[in-house]
Amino acid sequence: MILVADNIQIINKTISEAVEDLNPLPIQNLAIKCEKAGAQAIDINSGPLSRNPEKKMGFLVESIQEVSDLPILIDTANLKAIKAGLAANKKTAIINGFSLEPAKLKAILPLAKEYNVDIIGYLLYESGHVPPTALERLNVAVELFQAFCDAGIDKKHLVIDPIVPPISWDNGSFQAREVVTVIQTLPELLGFEVKTIAGLSNLTTGNAGREKKLLLERAYLPMLASAGLDMALMNVLHRETVGIAEACNALTDARIFSWETITAV
Amino acid sequence: MILVADNIQIINKTISEAVEDLNPLPIQNLAIKCEKAGAQAIDINSGPLSRNPEKKMGFLVESIQEVSDLPILIDTANLKAIKAGLAANKKTAIINGFSLEPAKLKAILPLAKEYNVDIIGYLLYESGHVPPTALERLNVAVELFQAFCDAGIDKKHLVIDPIVPPISWDNGSFQAREVVTVIQTLPELLGFEVKTIAGLSNLTTGNAGREKKLLLERAYLPMLASAGLDMALMNVLHRETVGIAEACNALTDARIFSWETITAV
Repeated sequence: MILVADNIQIINKTISEAVEDLNPLPIQNLAIKCEKAGAQAIDINSGPLSRNPEKKMGFLVESIQEVSDLPILIDTANLKAIKAGLAANKKTAIINGFSLEPAKLKAILPLAKEYNVDIIGYLLYESGHVPPTALERLNVAVELFQAFCDAGIDKKHLVIDPIVPPISWDNGSFQAREVVTVIQTLPELLGFEVKTIAGLSNLTTGNAGREKKLLLERAYLPMLASAGLDMALMNVLHRETVGIAEACNALTDARIFSWETITAV
Repeated sequence: MILVADNIQIINKTISEAVEDLNPLPIQNLAIKCEKAGAQAIDINSGPLSRNPEKKMGFLVESIQEVSDLPILIDTANLKAIKAGLAANKKTAIINGFSLEPAKLKAILPLAKEYNVDIIGYLLYESGHVPPTALERLNVAVELFQAFCDAGIDKKHLVIDPIVPPISWDNGSFQAREVVTVIQTLPELLGFEVKTIAGLSNLTTGNAGREKKLLLERAYLPMLASAGLDMALMNVLHRETVGIAEACNALTDARIFSWETITAV
């Protein structure tokens, strides 16, 4: 399981101001900090970028790639921004992402082929609603995979995001378990080792104490890892959670265990 | 998943001295501390008790039951001590435990029927060796269950311990994952919701930094919980680990989630 930093997001005021001012330093400092903390990829959550999307996403990608060789995830629903990000990319980029929503299937999915990059597919209905059960999510996965194949893209480029629910939803803990089942079931269902990604902080969306949120995330991450999750999208500046992730990798890694693989906090 | 304190063990010098002196106070203090920390059962790991096993186990059970109503696990291979513990028990006792070893099948297993209590069965070969794969552990489980039924004991009294391996073994991380598979597979294999128990600290037996050990235990516990573990035998004075266990329960509980169920550290 690799750790993808979710730290670079437009709702972070420092980041939004830096993007507005086209000032690379605060973004670069955070990217360097994330890499030092254990990030193995960096999600660039730019939000919709309603004004100057091309310029701003190009700036974000260039700023980060000036200081880091890590893969980047271009995380926006803005088509222009995605294209600008892919055009600016000089290293490894992943599109984050598409769904069964017709506009996304038509416009975003083909970019994975055009730029020969991985793309994340969300297990959501066309309407954008979240399928409540594992079975319904798996049905969506089959449809998504079909659309993927129809677009002529090599299946190795598919990364599935089963959509972690907020646990505070009425059926949140049930859905959280269903997501574990989905991750465990997908390779057999689709007939190949399809990659998966999950956004850990989605679980604890809402108002609650920081320590309680961290405990829930630290309990849920190993459940996802045990099910075979490939990419954990998370705040990599939570050191204890990164330590748990390293311990998960020690437990799921086929190589002989070494205490060296775990960094004590 | 309920938390079983592994804290009362004879290798703890305070406990061994208290047992030697038949001084209940240190034992009672620790039992009270464990219950306050979140223990829902208490394992009494007395070791072999080569001298005066009856007197000492009787003393341990009585001392603890004077201050706590929690179920106790009588954790010794000494037959006399087990019998004395069961005779002294005035609340809920669980025998910990038996295996395919002929002497244990013959002498210990029937005590579960005689005293109408739960008994823990270890997934070990007759020789005492640990079966290295999930499949081999499951084969042992079938044999163990057969022996259990042959002894005329109601299957509701069976608790299976799949034997958590030290991760430092050559194939330790592999076996740790196999144990997860075993826990997940047992109910379907045996055809009923058989209870399971796992000793968390077994995973980190050996020389390593305390923080690294704790991280591994905190990563492994949710994997076990996600697989359906019923009883986690652990050091309940590790507060962060207890918090993770509470978070696991919030995630696996079918009831509607409430932040109140998680105690921040």
